[in-house]
Amino acid sequence: MSEDLLLIPGPVTVSKDVLKAQSIQSLSHTHPKFISIFQSVLKNLRVLFKSTNPKDQGIVISGSGTLGWDITGSNLVYPDDDVLVLSTGFFSDKFAKALEVYDANVDILTAPVGGINSLQEVETQLKKKKYSVITITHVDTSTAVTQNLANLSKIIKKVSPESLIVIDGVCSVAVEDIEFTKWGLDYVLTGSQKAIGIPPGLSIGFISERAIEKALKRPKQSTYFASLPLWLPILQNYEAGKPSYFATPSIQLINALKVSLDEILNGGLEERFIKSKRVAQDFKKRLTNELGLQLVSLDNEYSASGLTGVYFPEGINGPDFLNSAYKRGVVFAGGIHTAIQPKYFRVGHMGVSALDDSLGHIEKAFDVIKESLAELGYKKIE
Amino acid sequence: MSEDLLLIPGPVTVSKDVLKAQSIQSLSHTHPKFISIFQSVLKNLRVLFKSTNPKDQGIVISGSGTLGWDITGSNLVYPDDDVLVLSTGFFSDKFAKALEVYDANVDILTAPVGGINSLQEVETQLKKKKYSVITITHVDTSTAVTQNLANLSKIIKKVSPESLIVIDGVCSVAVEDIEFTKWGLDYVLTGSQKAIGIPPGLSIGFISERAIEKALKRPKQSTYFASLPLWLPILQNYEAGKPSYFATPSIQLINALKVSLDEILNGGLEERFIKSKRVAQDFKKRLTNELGLQLVSLDNEYSASGLTGVYFPEGINGPDFLNSAYKRGVVFAGGIHTAIQPKYFRVGHMGVSALDDSLGHIEKAFDVIKESLAELGYKKIE
Repeated sequence: MSEDLLLIPGPVTVSKDVLKAQSIQSLSHTHPKFISIFQSVLKNLRVLFKSTNPKDQGIVISGSGTLGWDITGSNLVYPDDDVLVLSTGFFSDKFAKALEVYDANVDILTAPVGGINSLQEVETQLKKKKYSVITITHVDTSTAVTQNLANLSKIIKKVSPESLIVIDGVCSVAVEDIEFTKWGLDYVLTGSQKAIGIPPGLSIGFISERAIEKALKRPKQSTYFASLPLWLPILQNYEAGKPSYFATPSIQLINALKVSLDEILNGGLEERFIKSKRVAQDFKKRLTNELGLQLVSLDNEYSASGLTGVYFPEGINGPDFLNSAYKRGVVFAGGIHTAIQPKYFRVGHMGVSALDDSLGHIEKAFDVIKESLAELGYKKIE
Repeated sequence: MSEDLLLIPGPVTVSKDVLKAQSIQSLSHTHPKFISIFQSVLKNLRVLFKSTNPKDQGIVISGSGTLGWDITGSNLVYPDDDVLVLSTGFFSDKFAKALEVYDANVDILTAPVGGINSLQEVETQLKKKKYSVITITHVDTSTAVTQNLANLSKIIKKVSPESLIVIDGVCSVAVEDIEFTKWGLDYVLTGSQKAIGIPPGLSIGFISERAIEKALKRPKQSTYFASLPLWLPILQNYEAGKPSYFATPSIQLINALKVSLDEILNGGLEERFIKSKRVAQDFKKRLTNELGLQLVSLDNEYSASGLTGVYFPEGINGPDFLNSAYKRGVVFAGGIHTAIQPKYFRVGHMGVSALDDSLGHIEKAFDVIKESLAELGYKKIE
């Protein structure tokens, strides 16, 4: 199979060592060889999320990022709980829909497309009701807008300290800084195929001691597969180096995750966040300055490090542009935010694509955008 | 990583081509390249399950076999539905527990350990209540007991034709014959790491037109991630060759599944079932006749083609035996049925291990069992 350059906001291009780790022969899920792999993963998640409370817990379950929404709805939200969703796009709204399935009373505070709500707006909303759970989509993959978790958590701790803070980190974990303990977060959920840099197939997360307590005290279970009371002892056992069984874990994906977390942590977390941000900001600036394009995110200050949403210039047809790029060997993603769907495209620049300069992915992305637009007759208006 | 010979009832040793397919670089989940892979998988599931109704549907979702229990409970069982579970072991009972989470009223008809209930017992039970759903664990991985689905479905169709028939096929699909249409089955669920022969990480299934109707008419959704109303249009689109998105599918695992289904179907389904059965029966006979061991399944007639449960002889310590086998390079599985857990072990012989003679896996399994028992002082009593 010939390889195109995949530059969408997930699945992302993964490293060679990850692909190798992904193709080991199967192991027994209760054998010491696999236990030590899974143990390493669970310990390293503590480092990745910067948690200092040993009673917090890393979560790795076969599934996808979406499963994290069900884990939230079926464990952390009790029926009729009031939940506040801070929405910065399509995925924030889908999270709200998932929670409604679990009988949450959801209020959505919706930011303008490409923007965020002001801290004042959030504070005002928080004062209206006692929310049991507040969800924040750290980076909404439909808009490339990054929420400022440090500031938001500060306000939540001030106005509504008992609210659980749940972060959809699908497009942020391992590319944006997350301070689990310092910011007092309760559950961060993500998938495997984004900045964590392995193939899709895992729901990965990190949960706080107090969120665990709420999950364990839940009066009635509403899920089996996504049940934290059933999974937590299993995960705790694996982390302690003991065999344990609930449902068969994804051996190869967890081995790939081990290799990827080793790569991430060996490379230095801070260095990773700084470089990802620099590469992203340079790329965004070139798109706006050199090509005269308009980004979906309204302010570079909060435009995501892991992806960029770009409006098509007047007169450029979306599918034609994506085909033209594909002819040049690069796969970008179309728009997905319902309000602006046909008007923009998305470029993923997470993991090795941003961090390994020798691959030349970002240069290539820029050149292909420029060439494809030129082919379709676009001229920058000076 | 040095490779031991993995002979447990899942995850199973997978073929070289499957491992290769498992390690392709990521693809966009909406790109024609991936769509044609997923399309092939969904079409081939119709052949594997022998379905002739185009309104039935193959299901492939990131997860594990266990997720199929939630798919059942949250889609096909309405709250307060009466459900009958035919139990032949640990996994049948766990399925019952999973359904209770979704507010099913579950009756369990429990067979003796290693045995099955008579058709007369099943018929008597069916006449006691109108069951909306009847679950049958085709092969319970804790006992290696195979239910006769042809006979059971005949009785159900006679006594209670409106009951949905749900088959846990985790340890049977692709190693035991399943006639979805002929037997009038409604949902067969399995995982990827058993006889289908790929790494763990997918919930694979096949669902009937009438089960789909029941899922779509459900008064209230009780799951998001496992929701058939949300997944069905996506799966139907992929099968029709159209891009579609709900949650990111496991690109590499689905590519591995494509390769494995091609291998399975190209090799001939009937030939596969016949050879798997012959290899299994020969193996079981050698264990009982040559080594004087006792199987967990009480009758060879219904002992599974994909695995064997074997009691340790008097005086043999389970962990010592498994360690001794491991020193010889083979990984077997311990017991898991709560009533007899420390008294037996399990040998998986699914997929390439049974079908590719050149690998010599079954010979090796037998020799290692014999040598390990001898090392621990076992002598066959003539």
